[in-house]
Amino acid sequence: MSDQCVFCGIVAGDLPSVRVAEDDTTYAFMDINPASEGHLLVVPKRHSRDLVDIEPDDLAAVTLAAQRIARTAVKEFGADGVNLLNCCGADAWQTVFHFHLHVIPRYADKSRERLAAPWQPGVPGDMDVIAALGHRLAAALD
Amino acid sequence: MSDQCVFCGIVAGDLPSVRVAEDDTTYAFMDINPASEGHLLVVPKRHSRDLVDIEPDDLAAVTLAAQRIARTAVKEFGADGVNLLNCCGADAWQTVFHFHLHVIPRYADKSRERLAAPWQPGVPGDMDVIAALGHRLAAALD
Ligand SMILES: [Zn+2]
Ligand SMILES: [Zn+2]
Repeated sequence: MSDQCVFCGIVAGDLPSVRVAEDDTTYAFMDINPASEGHLLVVPKRHSRDLVDIEPDDLAAVTLAAQRIARTAVKEFGADGVNLLNCCGADAWQTVFHFHLHVIPRYADKSRERLAAPWQPGVPGDMDVIAALGHRLAAALD
Repeated sequence: MSDQCVFCGIVAGDLPSVRVAEDDTTYAFMDINPASEGHLLVVPKRHSRDLVDIEPDDLAAVTLAAQRIARTAVKEFGADGVNLLNCCGADAWQTVFHFHLHVIPRYADKSRERLAAPWQPGVPGDMDVIAALGHRLAAALD
C-alpha cells in the first residue's frame, strides 16, 4: 500500500472508478484513457509495483480474473479478439506503478479502437545473436 | 494438439527452437522475429488456441513461468523493463494459433529494441460511454 498510489486509492474506494468485477484479491475497472471500446484494467488489491515485484499468487489471480472478464467482454461487446498487456517499468510504457493487466477488446471495425501494432512480427532477427541470448538466459535460469 | 501447429511441433521437438526453460506444463523459447533483444515466448505444452480457449491451470502456469523468466531476463540482459503481451485472435495480432505469451525485455537504449507504443495512453475517452460499457460488462459477469 502506498499513500500516493492512485490504484490503491481506487481499490480502497477513496478514488472513483467504473467497477467491472472484484473478488478477494483482485479488482477490475474501466480504463479512462481507452485504447479500444471496453478497455479495462485488472489489479491486485494488495499493492505491488510491477511484474518483478508482484507475488506469484496475486499474479495468477489477476491473470485468471482477466481471462474470465476477457471471455465475457468478447461476447458482450461482440469483439473479434482481445489483448492482455502488462507494462513493467517506465521504459516499457508503465505509467502507474501499481501492477495492472490491460484487457483490450479488439475489433475488425477499426473505428472501435485506436491501436497500432507495436512491432512488425514478420521481420527475422539474426539467429546467431538470438541463439546466444537464449543460451545465456537458459544458463542463468538453471 | 494439432498436426499443423508449429508450436506443438516445437514442444514435441519435431521443429527446432532455442529453448530457454521448460517444466511439466510449459515451454519457453526465443522468438525468431524479435521485437527486442531477448524477446521470447512461453507456451503451454498442451495445445490450446488462444486466451479464450486455454484451461485456467495452463494459463496460470504459463504466466508464472513468464514472470520467473522475465525477472531473470531483466537482470541477465540489463533490461530497463519488460512487457508481457498476449494476442488473442487475428484482429489482435495473433499469427500462430497456439496460445503464447510474449516476454519482451525493454531498454532505455532504443537500439536494443524495435517497438512503438501501440496507443497514446494519455488520451481520455468519453466517460459516459466508458461507464455504460463498464456497467454492461459488470452485469454480464454477475
Ligand atoms: Zn497501489
Ligand atoms: Zn499447438
